[in-house]
Amino acid sequence: MFLTPVLKVRTDMPLYQQLYQHIKAEIIAGHLVAEQKLPSKRRLAEHLDVSQNTVKGAYEQLLEEGYISSKERSGYFVQEIRNLVQVPKVAEHIEEPGTEKPQWIVDFGYHGVDLEHFPFLILRKLAKDILGQRDPAFLRRVDPQGYKPLRDAIASYLHNARGVHCNPEQIVISSGTEFLFSILFQVLPDHFLYGIEDPGQDRLPLLFRRNRAQWVPMAMDVDGMRTDSVRESGVDVLCITPAHQFPSGTIMSVGRRTELLEWAGQKPSRYLVEDDYDGEFKYGGVPVPALQSLDGHERVVYMGTFSKALTPSLRISYMVLPEHLLRLYRRTLSYLICPVPLLDQMLLYRFIQDGYFERHLNQMRTIYRRKREALVKGLRNLSGAIHVQGAEAGLHLVLKVNNGMTEGQLIAAAQACGVKVYGMSAYRIQSSESPIPEILIGYASVTLSDVEKGVGLLAEAWFGGAT
Amino acid sequence: MFLTPVLKVRTDMPLYQQLYQHIKAEIIAGHLVAEQKLPSKRRLAEHLDVSQNTVKGAYEQLLEEGYISSKERSGYFVQEIRNLVQVPKVAEHIEEPGTEKPQWIVDFGYHGVDLEHFPFLILRKLAKDILGQRDPAFLRRVDPQGYKPLRDAIASYLHNARGVHCNPEQIVISSGTEFLFSILFQVLPDHFLYGIEDPGQDRLPLLFRRNRAQWVPMAMDVDGMRTDSVRESGVDVLCITPAHQFPSGTIMSVGRRTELLEWAGQKPSRYLVEDDYDGEFKYGGVPVPALQSLDGHERVVYMGTFSKALTPSLRISYMVLPEHLLRLYRRTLSYLICPVPLLDQMLLYRFIQDGYFERHLNQMRTIYRRKREALVKGLRNLSGAIHVQGAEAGLHLVLKVNNGMTEGQLIAAAQACGVKVYGMSAYRIQSSESPIPEILIGYASVTLSDVEKGVGLLAEAWFGGAT
Repeated sequence: MFLTPVLKVRTDMPLYQQLYQHIKAEIIAGHLVAEQKLPSKRRLAEHLDVSQNTVKGAYEQLLEEGYISSKERSGYFVQEIRNLVQVPKVAEHIEEPGTEKPQWIVDFGYHGVDLEHFPFLILRKLAKDILGQRDPAFLRRVDPQGYKPLRDAIASYLHNARGVHCNPEQIVISSGTEFLFSILFQVLPDHFLYGIEDPGQDRLPLLFRRNRAQWVPMAMDVDGMRTDSVRESGVDVLCITPAHQFPSGTIMSVGRRTELLEWAGQKPSRYLVEDDYDGEFKYGGVPVPALQSLDGHERVVYMGTFSKALTPSLRISYMVLPEHLLRLYRRTLSYLICPVPLLDQMLLYRFIQDGYFERHLNQMRTIYRRKREALVKGLRNLSGAIHVQGAEAGLHLVLKVNNGMTEGQLIAAAQACGVKVYGMSAYRIQSSESPIPEILIGYASVTLSDVEKGVGLLAEAWFGGAT
Repeated sequence: MFLTPVLKVRTDMPLYQQLYQHIKAEIIAGHLVAEQKLPSKRRLAEHLDVSQNTVKGAYEQLLEEGYISSKERSGYFVQEIRNLVQVPKVAEHIEEPGTEKPQWIVDFGYHGVDLEHFPFLILRKLAKDILGQRDPAFLRRVDPQGYKPLRDAIASYLHNARGVHCNPEQIVISSGTEFLFSILFQVLPDHFLYGIEDPGQDRLPLLFRRNRAQWVPMAMDVDGMRTDSVRESGVDVLCITPAHQFPSGTIMSVGRRTELLEWAGQKPSRYLVEDDYDGEFKYGGVPVPALQSLDGHERVVYMGTFSKALTPSLRISYMVLPEHLLRLYRRTLSYLICPVPLLDQMLLYRFIQDGYFERHLNQMRTIYRRKREALVKGLRNLSGAIHVQGAEAGLHLVLKVNNGMTEGQLIAAAQACGVKVYGMSAYRIQSSESPIPEILIGYASVTLSDVEKGVGLLAEAWFGGAT
């Protein structure tokens, strides 16, 4: 008889589970074949010297998963299992030593967030609550534009924190800027010409090219995108980052905002796409609301993300469509379902609604401000040859370093001292490099003590330790 | 003094929280203004007759969120708060009566899953474990192709359950078929012509059009896509659903599979896109592995989803790219980040790795088989004028109803009896309607007792109750 497993009283697996596993393995191995009759619960329980309940538990699970069937008044029979699924475990993932990233003492990258204050336990509590409710909404498709309560909460946040005028119906939730743009490309006419910031986000040219959207680089000055080049360019849509231009860190001046809105207002086919990627963080001076708040003519498409405010691994972004584009979107993109899983949308909704988001943002702002102050102070003390710009907002700043080194030399010298910094030139398309090299420094992911350590190492790398 | 809140010993909010809320509200209201000095902890504790720890807790939270600052040896001061965020609560979402769906007695829709056996509690446990680990991976970007352990687990599942040959590197995880296709459109040449099944998935024509991809409808017969029309069409890529054609329910014959693979093998620019949307569920007979398992020439792009196996609200799909397309994808789509949040990818990985997925699939297969059997038996008993097809696999079947009614009349008569059924003609592009009307019936979301109730109501609707 194949049904003689060695059952052990183990705390980690109940007896009925052990028996289930054993019988299942015997069926899969072909030792018990289709149509074969299994012993009755009573007989097997006696044979194994276990309770009938143990056998009952095992048989029920086997029944449930289709390994056996029961025929009334005649007993249990092994089922044909060739259409059942087996999924062997894979090897647990262990980082291979060779694939590790180079070990930096300090990495001033700017794609991450603070590593010490992520609200894991709050999210754990909320996930537990949400999944415990067994909400039938989980078993249906997601709303095409995103979970309505989350859109309500985002609209409330945008109104209060960024001055954005919108109703929740205008919000489209998606997975990231690239997905929002690919929706826009489908809503707007194919022949549209897009103007993108130069220097600007390096993913955009490739994103536009792969989506067969025409684009031209636009010149920038200290106030933002230059109005003269906008006027000459013949573009239909400008893609801008007014709150904290990437990568230069400039905050677009009020005058320039007005000029660009005027430009857009001159033709009904002109649009501004405002990417407010790190607009949550402004550290001093007058708060600057989103450009969208000044838009009286439905010319601005506002894009936001939770990548900086929470974490890039959340993959939740959204845009606010002007009413007439919303109608177009609904008419033309009916096949498109919101890509964000409902669980994350519900989690984020509760996180905002229960007040955790407000607290988290204000706490992170305090933390980031401290890091930024330590960084700016340290860098300014380091040498008069360093000029800091773009530090009033966001999570990165730009250094002009006038010590005679080129950008490449600055990066290499920092690297030799174990510090990773980034060059502005990687973000230039046609614009010529600044005569004084520009270095990008992100401070979200480093600790306060790493900021000090990093500045000390940069002093060594760039000024031979003379501080 | 504004700092005299009415503090209550309440179980739902600790005293320090009440004090924090009160002071925060006073600051926001402008009753406490920037630079104003707050009383010392000792003084305020005496004033309010609470412990110093209570005041300390409130001050610490206010410090953390940036409402006050502390200056060494001089005390606590109200901060400039104009850049802090306030996010008012939104009204809790209540379904408006007017927006409710019409109340069906039984809805035989086919986009959903079983509503009674979703593993909420297992997912809750896994979410708790995952978020409790405070994994720093949560604070970084997601792997562009998707979480590697999940890709390992999917590869193991595909190999064992669907016979798919792949290594985890070839898997690209995304949010849904439409996102997978939009990646393919960017990887494959712009001029490619796509052939889609007619009748077929109704979202495809719009998806293709909006992505500026050229397509033609392809004729079908009982074996699948017709080889003669494939040969005449001049298409480069065929989009097919061999496991259970949507909507007809046909399983593509082995002969047809071989013919299509031969066709694809004749030119290096030909591809088959195999959408295995419900390939998890096959109920009897010989298991039919995925078409990809027969592909010796890297001609098949295999697409899968967890929408049917788990729930459509999960929004996790994936495709297996042939090696040469994988290289192209990596070269051309470097800007594209996997849209699925890391939390869901980790959840799904653990769900598969810990054996829950195998059990869930086998359990659901048993449940769906029971519903299907009750449905098929009921329908066959109902009238000789009903012919059932496409019931060997998947989660829906097709009825040919030969009672003299048109498709529209069948749907309307069912509706009059409270039963929602669906017409095949909505999925036809150019193909002519069958002389005997065809009705789609999904059975995943209905209960076993609803199946019986629904069949009884259809008997009344279509045959005047004569069964």
